[in-house]
Amino acid sequence: MTSMSNERGRFITLEGIEGAGKSTQVSIIADRLRARGRSVVTTREPGGSPIAERMRALLLDPLNRGMSDTAELLLMFAARAEHLEKTIRPALEAGTWVICDRFTDATYAYQGGGRGLDPERIAVLERLVQGDLRPDLTLLLDLPPEAGLARARVRSGAAADRFEAEAVGFFSAARAVYLARAEAASERYRLIDAGAPLERVRDQVVAALDAFLAEPHPED
Amino acid sequence: MTSMSNERGRFITLEGIEGAGKSTQVSIIADRLRARGRSVVTTREPGGSPIAERMRALLLDPLNRGMSDTAELLLMFAARAEHLEKTIRPALEAGTWVICDRFTDATYAYQGGGRGLDPERIAVLERLVQGDLRPDLTLLLDLPPEAGLARARVRSGAAADRFEAEAVGFFSAARAVYLARAEAASERYRLIDAGAPLERVRDQVVAALDAFLAEPHPED
Repeated sequence: MTSMSNERGRFITLEGIEGAGKSTQVSIIADRLRARGRSVVTTREPGGSPIAERMRALLLDPLNRGMSDTAELLLMFAARAEHLEKTIRPALEAGTWVICDRFTDATYAYQGGGRGLDPERIAVLERLVQGDLRPDLTLLLDLPPEAGLARARVRSGAAADRFEAEAVGFFSAARAVYLARAEAASERYRLIDAGAPLERVRDQVVAALDAFLAEPHPED
Repeated sequence: MTSMSNERGRFITLEGIEGAGKSTQVSIIADRLRARGRSVVTTREPGGSPIAERMRALLLDPLNRGMSDTAELLLMFAARAEHLEKTIRPALEAGTWVICDRFTDATYAYQGGGRGLDPERIAVLERLVQGDLRPDLTLLLDLPPEAGLARARVRSGAAADRFEAEAVGFFSAARAVYLARAEAASERYRLIDAGAPLERVRDQVVAALDAFLAEPHPED
């Protein structure tokens, strides 16, 4: 096990529309990895570093409702560039595992699917900001938007942010992109039925994580 | 002259390092165009629309000193996308002339020259955000950085923003990029000696503007 000190950390992302229960599952994954002796940081997008959180505030503030779709896309990647440089890359290089609530798949789903932006424009920015960095594992917590929004609204009440305030059609389009991406990159994605009772969602997430841990990894 | 109502406005930008006197010259140009019966808006970058001004505040705030170069570049283009959609394109389409204190040439000079980012990365974003929109005329107010910084510091005092706080080498690199771009695109650029006394700078700017107005324009 002494070789672990030189091993790069793994990058695990959780994706899904509002109300899918991602933040609960982030904690469960982190606890399970720590119990196995891994160093873990949990983080989220947009945000995840002090300057990126300031960009997140601009992105979510209902005051900025009229923001152009292209500006939103670029601001999302500005926050991501900051998050990568300050939080994600240093952690991975130090051998720490990074568990992130949303990443670039969410940009394809929300800005591509939801807003209707050309995915090739997103791919240009993905290459520019990330180079060849991609998540090692992505858990897609899938559920119908009506169910997710009902849960999210219980949580947020009247204080819905700029994305939570979108209509069901926006989230249906986002979900469709998520599902298409999961099918196209099945080696990286694990599909979780997030409409199930919480205990069953947890079981699926733990099973997916344990299967990932049991796989041989080229860098080990 | 009745055809003027259908004519697209022209897009004029002023460029130069800190202390070059751009904002004074923006007013002079606007006054001269209005005296000739043109509808004019004056604006600035980063900023120029309510949401873009919020992005500007993030870019300039000394609190954000550690911002990654790539995040800064993307945030600059996010503000530009917003500015184009809300202010510049609607004005030009309505036949209004737009006089802008800094535009994408400044990104090549500051983020390319000053920060050392690959200009091809900037060109990718320029195409993504602007399509084929470019200024019709760019006045480069050129002066040695030592002279410009001395002027800018008198103006800002202790409250220098994140760019004004940079060292002379940063502005020397920015100036070199400006001069190279002016030479490479001489049909669009007019070089103004901004180290001259204010009255002489004004004379050069007015002469460049009048020459531009006298040129035949394909859309007229």
